[in-house]
Formats: sequence, structure tokens, C-alpha cells
Amino acid sequence: MNTQQLISQIKAKKSFLCVGLDVDVEKIPAHLLLEEDPIFAFNKAIIDATHPYVVAYKPNTAFYEAYGIKGWQSLEKTIQYLKANYPDVFTIADAKRGDIGNTSTRYAKAFFEDLGFDSITVAPYMGRDSVEPFLAFENKTTILLALTSNEKAFDFQTLSTEGTMLYDKVLETSKHWKNSHNLMYVVGATKAEYFKEIRKIVPDNFLLVPGVGVQGGSLEAVCRYGLNKNIGLLINSSRAIIYATAESDFDEKAASEAQKIQLEMQQLLTERDLL
Amino acid sequence: MNTQQLISQIKAKKSFLCVGLDVDVEKIPAHLLLEEDPIFAFNKAIIDATHPYVVAYKPNTAFYEAYGIKGWQSLEKTIQYLKANYPDVFTIADAKRGDIGNTSTRYAKAFFEDLGFDSITVAPYMGRDSVEPFLAFENKTTILLALTSNEKAFDFQTLSTEGTMLYDKVLETSKHWKNSHNLMYVVGATKAEYFKEIRKIVPDNFLLVPGVGVQGGSLEAVCRYGLNKNIGLLINSSRAIIYATAESDFDEKAASEAQKIQLEMQQLLTERDLL
Repeated sequence: MNTQQLISQIKAKKSFLCVGLDVDVEKIPAHLLLEEDPIFAFNKAIIDATHPYVVAYKPNTAFYEAYGIKGWQSLEKTIQYLKANYPDVFTIADAKRGDIGNTSTRYAKAFFEDLGFDSITVAPYMGRDSVEPFLAFENKTTILLALTSNEKAFDFQTLSTEGTMLYDKVLETSKHWKNSHNLMYVVGATKAEYFKEIRKIVPDNFLLVPGVGVQGGSLEAVCRYGLNKNIGLLINSSRAIIYATAESDFDEKAASEAQKIQLEMQQLLTERDLL
Repeated sequence: MNTQQLISQIKAKKSFLCVGLDVDVEKIPAHLLLEEDPIFAFNKAIIDATHPYVVAYKPNTAFYEAYGIKGWQSLEKTIQYLKANYPDVFTIADAKRGDIGNTSTRYAKAFFEDLGFDSITVAPYMGRDSVEPFLAFENKTTILLALTSNEKAFDFQTLSTEGTMLYDKVLETSKHWKNSHNLMYVVGATKAEYFKEIRKIVPDNFLLVPGVGVQGGSLEAVCRYGLNKNIGLLINSSRAIIYATAESDFDEKAASEAQKIQLEMQQLLTERDLL
């Protein structure tokens, strides 16, 4: 899926909501533990219930690796289910990978070709030759960490480097990489005051924004400077939606939480005349 | 395994060689493709042949993820085989992970507890709260990327930040993190001219040094400033050893290449009176 298709879907659903499928078996409803694959059963129910309000799903690979081979099977089943049943949604492997060139190519093939994700998150520290192997895949999106949502993002990302901050340098430098039109960036909702500066550097790219919800970021604050003429935002919420309740109506409650955010998004898009 | 046990093993084997188990089925001897698990069969043969000269093995997870669930099974079998048969060797998951706190904890459990690796490589970009969940595991080692061996490491790692270079800042800052005694650092052999400065900042920590061999780094140059009173170096070689030949005597040739490096290491350690 390319960006144009993503934008069409956002306009159709009046939503730029991404749901993080970060499944912890200790938090899912007890009756699902009787299923053969509780993680997949949970994901399937969440996806089926929330998809009218959601344009992207983002499993974080850590939550699957934590269950070893069974976890990888759940991840594989989840992406296959999404592609077979909801081919219009955008899929994100939140894997934060990155390695020397020939090794990054392995990761890119694993996530883009074998699993079939539309996109993957990638760490920038190792530089251009660690990221370009991902960018080489056409109609696939590489989502580079820029300014992350965690508290200690400030340890390095906002260090002053040659008159600008490190994350600004990451944004600026990566624009000149080969196939940089395939780039999105991760910018945390908890850092809303930075969006104005960020939009000066990358006015056109999509930003994947975690940190709304449990982490405390505000949707309205992110949209103030984050939205662009092509919308340009994917807002992720994980725990606030998927763990809205641990009762048997978890899927309905998740849908209801997703719909609340979708309605807020619809209003913001309408106010800006973006639909 | 803790650092003291690693040092004892280095002194016993007169070697600080680490072998990277980066297995590409297109490069392994054809007869192994008839095995049920060619990757594990290859690793087993390489380990059995080279272990007298080797103190650490380092599978890079990208090479296993590239083969999906089968790849993870090969990785699991490899680490189990190492722990069962060579409990004295140090094991490194070259995974370059890192995420927000609760998610990093998932990765740490997956690699330290479930798979049972002694150590894992971790990316620093997200800062303290992305790394401390790994450091929280006692008798486990967190190997932080500092100055990597790839060409474009210079994109960000050597940027001038507040009067020093970014990788220096990573070294300096991480020293103050909780349980920083569990830290090692990745420093590429292709950047040998930086080792003097690095040893001023982290005189005591072990450095994991990739890039000797195919990537062109020199063992002697690395040792000049890299060795410390506890040896303090693990030198990794992957392709030059494991793909010494694709003939049926690949394991013997791998052992012979490993022994060559071990003998060079023994001489360097003897010259420095470190044995």
C-alpha cells in the first residue's frame, strides 16, 4: 500500500487512527485463554470490532517475541488475517530495527516480503546505509524514529548538534537519502510543542504519533501543527483502546473507544476542511 | 554469565574471539540443505569445530527472522545447544533492540530469560528508559551501540554535540544509568583511530568489536588502545570464519581461520603481559 491509498482510506473513514496491537496475555479477557491461540483470538476480535474507525494496525514485535515461536505464529496469523480480510488498512510492524546494510536487507525482506507488512519502524542511530535497504522497497514505508514519546527521549534526541537538535538533524539528513519519498517519521504526542518546528523540516511526510492516551499526549495539541494538506498524521493508541475493559465485551468497548477518537478526528478534519 | 567468568575463559583459551553466526542458506555447503534444519546443522558444526579458539558466539537475529518461524526455531536450537554443550562460552543476541520502557522489558525477558542469552545488543537513540530495562537483569550484559562499523556511522554518531561527539555522549551518559556495571559497548574495528578517546571515557568496560575481516578492520590497530588490564575486548568475525569455504570441510576451514586469529590474539596478550 502506498501513501496515496492511505490518504484515500483516511478520507473514506474520516479517521487517522492507528491501533497498537501490543498484546499481553495477562491483560486479555480470561475466556480467551481457552483458545488455541489467545493472542490471535484477541487481535481478531479487536480488529473485527474496531476496523470501521481505524486506518492502521501496529503490532509491536516485542510483545510477540516475548512468547517465542508461539508469539511469532500469532504475529504471522494476525498480519495474514488483516491482509485477507481488510486489505484497505495500513499495517505497521513496530520493530525499531536497524543494522549494517546487508543485515538491514534481511530485516526488510522478513517484514515487507515474508510477513507482508506495509511498513516498519526503524532506528536512525547507525545512519544512511542502515536505513536505505528498507527504503529500497517500493510501495513500502519506512518509519524512522525521530522524537519518541518516552521521557528520556531527551537524553540524546534533543541534544544540540551543529546548531540544531539531533532529531532535527535526523529529519533533515534523511530527506536526502535514496527513495526518501518512502519515509514517515515517529514523533511522540507527548512532545506536541515540537510539531511546529518539525513541520518546517518535513512539511509533506506522514508522522506516526504514539503517546496519545495512557502516555498522556493530546490529540488536539498534536493536530494544531501536525496536520498538513494531505492530513499527514497517523495517531496511535494502544492500551486505551485494546484494554478498555478485560470483560467479555472487550471488543465492543474497544470499538466504542476507537469511535470516540474517530469522531474527534472527524471534527478536527472538518474544521480544517480536509475531508 | 558475568564479566569475571568471561575474563577467566579468555585467559584459559588465550582468545577474545567472538564468532558471528550470521547464517545465509545460500552460502552454506549444499549437503547441509538436506538436513531437517540446515541453519542449526551449520551452526552446530561451526560451534563444535571452532569452540577451542572462541569465547563468544553472536547470532544476528536478522538472519533468523528472515526465515520466519523456522528461523526462530533454528535460533532457539542454537542457543540451547550452546548452553547445554558449551556452558563456558558467552552468548550474544545481536538484536539491536530498544523501545519505550515496558516494551524493552518484553525484549529483555525474551532474550535473557526465555532464550537464555548472556547478552543482547541495544540501540541508544531512545535514551535511558529504553535501556535500563535490559540493565535490570543481573549477570546479564547489555551491549550498547556506540560507534558502529558501517560507513555511514558518521551520519549521526560523530556529530558534534555540546563539544563532544554523539557516540562519546552515549558512552558518558550511559555510565550514569542504573546498573551501568552491566554495560558493554559496540565499537567498530573500522574506526580504530577512535579507540584511544573511547578508552579515556570507558577505561574498564568491555568493547564488542565487529568489522575485523571482511569489513576491513585490523586486529592489531584495535588492540593498540582497546585492550585494558582485564583485556576488555571481544573481537567479532563472521563471514571470514563461517564462510571460509562452502565445501564439505567448511567446519575444519572455519576452525583453522579461528585458530589463526586466536594465535594472533595470544601473541598480543603475551606481549602485553595479560595472560
